[in-house]
Amino acid sequence: MANYFSDNPDLQYYFDRGVDWRRLAELVEQGFRLPDGHASAEEALEFYREVASVVGEVAATVIEPRAAAIDAQGMQLSGGEVVAPPEHDEIFSQLGELGLHGLVIPRELGGQNAPALLYFMNGELLSRADTSVMTHHGFHGGIAMVLYLLSLAEGTTRFDPETGLVTETRFPEEMAEVARGEAWGCMDITEPDAGSDMAALSAYAEQDEDGRWYVTGQKIFITSGHGKYHFVIARTDRDPKSGLGGLGMFLVRAYEDEASGRRRVVTIDRLEEKLGHHGSATASLSFERAPAELIGAPGEGFRYMLVLMNNARVSVGFESLGLMEAAYRRAAEYAAGRVSMGKTIDRHEMIADALDEMRTDIQALRALAVSAALHEELATRLGRIAQLTTKDEVEQQRLRREGQQHQREARRLTPLLKYLAAEKAVEHARRAMQIHGGNGYIVEYGVERLLRDALVLPIYEGTSQIQALMAMRDTLMAIIKSPQDFVRRVAEARWRALSSRDPLARRVARVSLLVRGAEQHLVARTAGAKFRELVSRPVSEWSSALSSGWDPKRDFRFAMLHAERLCHLLADEAILEILLEQAQRHPERAELLERALERAEPRMRSLHDVITTTGARLIEQLSDTEDLDPGVAATA
Amino acid sequence: MANYFSDNPDLQYYFDRGVDWRRLAELVEQGFRLPDGHASAEEALEFYREVASVVGEVAATVIEPRAAAIDAQGMQLSGGEVVAPPEHDEIFSQLGELGLHGLVIPRELGGQNAPALLYFMNGELLSRADTSVMTHHGFHGGIAMVLYLLSLAEGTTRFDPETGLVTETRFPEEMAEVARGEAWGCMDITEPDAGSDMAALSAYAEQDEDGRWYVTGQKIFITSGHGKYHFVIARTDRDPKSGLGGLGMFLVRAYEDEASGRRRVVTIDRLEEKLGHHGSATASLSFERAPAELIGAPGEGFRYMLVLMNNARVSVGFESLGLMEAAYRRAAEYAAGRVSMGKTIDRHEMIADALDEMRTDIQALRALAVSAALHEELATRLGRIAQLTTKDEVEQQRLRREGQQHQREARRLTPLLKYLAAEKAVEHARRAMQIHGGNGYIVEYGVERLLRDALVLPIYEGTSQIQALMAMRDTLMAIIKSPQDFVRRVAEARWRALSSRDPLARRVARVSLLVRGAEQHLVARTAGAKFRELVSRPVSEWSSALSSGWDPKRDFRFAMLHAERLCHLLADEAILEILLEQAQRHPERAELLERALERAEPRMRSLHDVITTTGARLIEQLSDTEDLDPGVAATA
Repeated sequence: MANYFSDNPDLQYYFDRGVDWRRLAELVEQGFRLPDGHASAEEALEFYREVASVVGEVAATVIEPRAAAIDAQGMQLSGGEVVAPPEHDEIFSQLGELGLHGLVIPRELGGQNAPALLYFMNGELLSRADTSVMTHHGFHGGIAMVLYLLSLAEGTTRFDPETGLVTETRFPEEMAEVARGEAWGCMDITEPDAGSDMAALSAYAEQDEDGRWYVTGQKIFITSGHGKYHFVIARTDRDPKSGLGGLGMFLVRAYEDEASGRRRVVTIDRLEEKLGHHGSATASLSFERAPAELIGAPGEGFRYMLVLMNNARVSVGFESLGLMEAAYRRAAEYAAGRVSMGKTIDRHEMIADALDEMRTDIQALRALAVSAALHEELATRLGRIAQLTTKDEVEQQRLRREGQQHQREARRLTPLLKYLAAEKAVEHARRAMQIHGGNGYIVEYGVERLLRDALVLPIYEGTSQIQALMAMRDTLMAIIKSPQDFVRRVAEARWRALSSRDPLARRVARVSLLVRGAEQHLVARTAGAKFRELVSRPVSEWSSALSSGWDPKRDFRFAMLHAERLCHLLADEAILEILLEQAQRHPERAELLERALERAEPRMRSLHDVITTTGARLIEQLSDTEDLDPGVAATA
Repeated sequence: MANYFSDNPDLQYYFDRGVDWRRLAELVEQGFRLPDGHASAEEALEFYREVASVVGEVAATVIEPRAAAIDAQGMQLSGGEVVAPPEHDEIFSQLGELGLHGLVIPRELGGQNAPALLYFMNGELLSRADTSVMTHHGFHGGIAMVLYLLSLAEGTTRFDPETGLVTETRFPEEMAEVARGEAWGCMDITEPDAGSDMAALSAYAEQDEDGRWYVTGQKIFITSGHGKYHFVIARTDRDPKSGLGGLGMFLVRAYEDEASGRRRVVTIDRLEEKLGHHGSATASLSFERAPAELIGAPGEGFRYMLVLMNNARVSVGFESLGLMEAAYRRAAEYAAGRVSMGKTIDRHEMIADALDEMRTDIQALRALAVSAALHEELATRLGRIAQLTTKDEVEQQRLRREGQQHQREARRLTPLLKYLAAEKAVEHARRAMQIHGGNGYIVEYGVERLLRDALVLPIYEGTSQIQALMAMRDTLMAIIKSPQDFVRRVAEARWRALSSRDPLARRVARVSLLVRGAEQHLVARTAGAKFRELVSRPVSEWSSALSSGWDPKRDFRFAMLHAERLCHLLADEAILEILLEQAQRHPERAELLERALERAEPRMRSLHDVITTTGARLIEQLSDTEDLDPGVAATA
């Protein structure tokens, strides 16, 4: 029987040897002491593998055969409520029966206490069948996770230090309801005049004399916005100058089902008619003094949003992978069956080259995705265990530090993953179409759907450009704050490039040097004046001189121009480092590293070339027209 | 009033100074001696400009406002006939009234005797409003041109040597009917099992005892296949081994309108439901002993097809330009109005960079398109005039040689144009979507339509891969046949790179050297063994040694792998040379050349890098699995 898990050796590598599941299971199962938990790492891993296999089969046999019908019908708004195609309902009732919606939340809260990594990897399997179904599923299981994570973050979840069980949490019934598949939720951030620019949000929350909160405003582009539990970002400080610091995070119940029927609090104004992703509703919502529960404190909204957002972005990474895998498989299968000029077209050199690159990209991005997800999960798990380890302060410190390291890695890798996976998903879908020739353009073949579905990936959960800006800013600010570290990293890479015994390690070190070179160029262009002034000072003063007096919008101009290119370089580098580690542990992975290097090396040389040789003209032009009327500047 | 001609300074450059219209008008008007013709170049040019201006206005005010409605409704098959949306009919009745369908054919045949270049440039204007309307229009005016060109090519059109007027032509009534807008035609090539591989076509033509021809077979993906006049490629030699040499070109009348109604000869089996391009019908057709008229002789079909195909591919170049212009304008306009982080997003560095590159790409490709069209037209015009110049043999030879030079240039530039313009159209449409953020994904905004429409461009009229293969083979065979010429070209470029007084000319020469380097590498890899054997022979023998004993499928393997990259390099080089020529004649064009160089230089270095450093692994792998069962090879 078709199964998207068992037919995929690269995916299975991560179950067999690519991930330290023993460590993860031990953390998740709190040392295998939980009353209803798995007794050992082996037992836990067997369960995880079984879940992945079931999801792989459901994806291939239940979801995929319904994807075209869901695409054709889409979600409809009728009498103020959203109606899904019957095929959509069939899928979600099956997913609910399997208990997938509560996969990650603790057993004592109605879940299956599985690692988030398993949830993310399931996402790839679901998305290979239908990205929009995967997305909507994310607002079931994902929201259950969010209810739990937010309560952890604000400190309202407590554990029994002996058993490790949750003794108290803020939203236990809501979580159980979601885990049973009876409700789902969504995240309400975007507004008509504020997309990437969250400081410009204007929906607001106000309190009555009894301290109860109410949210008022409009939200657009809300994925699965017909859900019950809405996490809404709204101003707690209505002064627009308060920016990101004036936001609060709220839980709003969009409706209550009462004996007399459904009473709606949040109005669904409209569903967007989209290019693709038709199994996922995209709603415009109105809040008119909707009763709301504040998470944490006023002004902390942006911080909580980052918690959700990082997880959502990792999830888009896996979603993109699933779509790429679908595009690659469709293309390879078609090419193996289509004869032209006396042979099947998968043996035509250009098509063989395209298929080879697609396969390499997918494996490379899967390595990055698993790594990002693992760091994200380890950060959360270790932080929580550190919280519980009150008796041993040294151990607590150690756990906390380890957790923070993973946090930093997750923060570093997530935008790289979201950026590159989403962009590659579009590229792969288009290549699959092109390999299909005329048939690729015909609706009946269903390949064009992959491209339509892919095109939302670089837009939602933060556009590719936003990911690139985040990655660029973190990277350059780290150099500016600690130039000594940067100098040391360059020296290390130089040493490895010359003296590693492994020729593959030398090649990875050489491309790392290219990335450092591009960074150095950007920092020099960014902070040219500042750096020139440093020359006359001792190195010990650099840090303080550099960490003050910045105007990012003006000083980072040159780096902003090249942010996508830098982001691509950083993603390539991160992938090669992970693959090198894999190859060093498991020699059979060296072949993949070699393929990835062959593709990455010229690309990275080129990105370095573009960053270091172009852009000055345009920056000058933008600066020249700075004070002009914007209309004039646009046509200049 | 909105006008796509008058709002476009770069397009107007080609009317003002960029094209030698005086020369062209003199050829078209045969020295201004035609009885009803223009009296002077000024008068002719004024007319051409007037036509472009009218078309620019119709495109902006009549077509563009109807594009969304046409996209939403599409073409429908009803009772065996195709029904267009009413908006579509409105547009075509206006275009017909303007006499645009007969624009290029001689006045004495019911046309306006305008240059084909004007027809092509109109194509850009129409396509900016709606690519699918532009395409369908092409099967009116374009088919009128084809009726004329084919009759010229087979020698059935004759002229009065005194007046230059057509005295005889094979399809005068058909041309007049098309010029009046009462009928149109199409080109029927593709079959279910033969797309790019034309040697595999199986539709056939047979003769009855009276010598009348009949065509039988199936054709698919026939654009505007509901037309009356079908140019059909069918086997005149039914032995499949006869390949391209066993094909004939036929004119089949798909129907006759009689007093009792329409009598159909060619059956429309189905219209494809496509991703986009909804104002253009894509039909599957059945021919069952359909009466046909042979063009030229049996076995000459492929040769005639090349005549049509070159024109059609140049036309897709202009179609792509129109779409890019639309995408760029939409993106620039949106970005100038959308405020984020305190300024309009066209002033955000990454978006400014994207818009700047789009603008540069469009201007670069317009230069290439105009040049390709001009060479194509001059080749045809000069060839015809040479035919008429029977009294002065020396002059006749000169004209013929000049025509052949233009023919070679047209053949060189056309695949480069088709390849790069179509690929860039997809890229620009996607960028326009991305710049629109979430709004780009919403049907209501209409930007997603541009991408849906663009995606057919790299597929039809020969896929991008086919263009690349053609360009690669012509280029490398020329080097192999005349290595001395190649060596001379390298030496010349090296000289220019060092000693040109104009720094821009030096930069262009330097990237030319990169292209020669990539070519040399490919030839060396392609013909390594052969070349090694040459070393021991005198240069004078190289040519004959190299021009025999090739097995292109095996010997060109490495070059085929890199064909798209080589094609991109060749296109970049051709564009830079044309822009350099413009800059040398008109200094105000130097700014464009500089922008184009800034983008092209790192790209060309990178393409050179990829060609010269990668690919060996994959070729080895393909060779290793050569003798395996194809199924095994695909999964290896």
